[in-house]
Amino acid sequence: MTSSPIGVFDSGVGGLTVVSEIQRRFPWRDVIYLGDTARVPYGNKSRETVIRYSLEIARFLTSLGVGMVVIACNTSSSWALAALEDEVSVPLMGMIEPGAKSAVETTRNGKVGLIGTRATVSSGAYHEAIKRLDSTIRLSSRACPLFVPLVEEGWADDPVTTEVARRYLEPMLSEGVDTLILGCTHYPVLIPALKEITDGRVTLISSASAAAEALGSVIGEKDDRDSGEGKLTCYVTDAGTHFREVGERILGSEIENMVAIPEERLL
Amino acid sequence: MTSSPIGVFDSGVGGLTVVSEIQRRFPWRDVIYLGDTARVPYGNKSRETVIRYSLEIARFLTSLGVGMVVIACNTSSSWALAALEDEVSVPLMGMIEPGAKSAVETTRNGKVGLIGTRATVSSGAYHEAIKRLDSTIRLSSRACPLFVPLVEEGWADDPVTTEVARRYLEPMLSEGVDTLILGCTHYPVLIPALKEITDGRVTLISSASAAAEALGSVIGEKDDRDSGEGKLTCYVTDAGTHFREVGERILGSEIENMVAIPEERLL
Repeated sequence: MTSSPIGVFDSGVGGLTVVSEIQRRFPWRDVIYLGDTARVPYGNKSRETVIRYSLEIARFLTSLGVGMVVIACNTSSSWALAALEDEVSVPLMGMIEPGAKSAVETTRNGKVGLIGTRATVSSGAYHEAIKRLDSTIRLSSRACPLFVPLVEEGWADDPVTTEVARRYLEPMLSEGVDTLILGCTHYPVLIPALKEITDGRVTLISSASAAAEALGSVIGEKDDRDSGEGKLTCYVTDAGTHFREVGERILGSEIENMVAIPEERLL
Repeated sequence: MTSSPIGVFDSGVGGLTVVSEIQRRFPWRDVIYLGDTARVPYGNKSRETVIRYSLEIARFLTSLGVGMVVIACNTSSSWALAALEDEVSVPLMGMIEPGAKSAVETTRNGKVGLIGTRATVSSGAYHEAIKRLDSTIRLSSRACPLFVPLVEEGWADDPVTTEVARRYLEPMLSEGVDTLILGCTHYPVLIPALKEITDGRVTLISSASAAAEALGSVIGEKDDRDSGEGKLTCYVTDAGTHFREVGERILGSEIENMVAIPEERLL
């Protein structure tokens, strides 16, 4: 593969946790990000709608000349990866396979937990990916629809969030999971609260970090490391100030190139 | 006005609290509802996007022959009412004026509180409407972005919700508001929790109920009461099961006529 830009998309700002990991590992690569902020969130929408939106975005990114597309949204990865493979000519990477693989390699007692949006959990995508890798592993899952709003409210470190997390996780902790997949790109921000509840007894698997690691095998050894510092361009379908605010917090740096496009441009 | 159907729209399912009030007061009227479930929520989106979506929906409803359009969404009422008035030929009713009027008539100490989405609160629409009615009234407001997800999670009666509500309301309660506008169509579901916190010292104004009451003056005395039981038809832009589930809980009855249309039909 050439050193054309890496395309990354998510329903909103959360996928920048994946961009942040890509920048850490491959700082010389250009990244083009699309956050579908006009239609966020995907996590409560139907399969058909999520597939349609994902196809529109993947076509838009390839029209900009990206060399690959990273689906930095677990909901979209769960439901739309197969449809995208039929339609898009560049290599694709979803969040599910890397997260599942990392969890299977990590667990010692074969009990893995999964947290995500309603759509990601109900799709069964992580379940299938794990079964393919090791059919003896038992997966417990729980949809946590309050986590994204809590993160976006800036309450990640608040006692209310810890209490909500305790309620969500209690059943799977009593089942004795030793590994927990954070199956939503917003969740890495909750790691401190999750560590407090799990009391260090559970290994947390960030799908953002697992995916960026897996990217190495796609980008390969031939990648051009000498071409200076990569540039990040962010497209958003709704020009609210919220994206920049939360996004810069996630990236730890300024977003210099931000372009608002109405989502009709995607149709 | 004739007895053509009343058009009602909201970003999602919450506007059915307004439909429920309309059915209670005018059970003989047909209602056509559109929930923009593919693009919900509006509350964190920009003004431009909310205006564009609202125009699309109002045109769709008038194309179905509604005799008036009720904007059962505070965010859309705050930002799009003026744009809709320029474009739509049938009478329009937003949520802001009726809620503001009811609050002004209710308060005894001139201190009114407002809770709503980020967009509704930051628009200043309630502030302006109240000032026009009585410039001596002091309005304290607070955006409560966690309330909608808590309601949709089915946690309206949960201690977590009471704790979140306490945190949101504390500042305005210490300021001594005696009247509180529930500036979001989801919020009537939270009335028990809000009553617990305010300890009966604050009168709660539901914009849904205030708007349905105000509708009487538009529909007028000549309305045909003898035409039997009105029919409700619900259009949704995303065919998830969530709308029916939450919607039937709000209406207290089955939704018999539900039609899914992709939101391109609105463009």
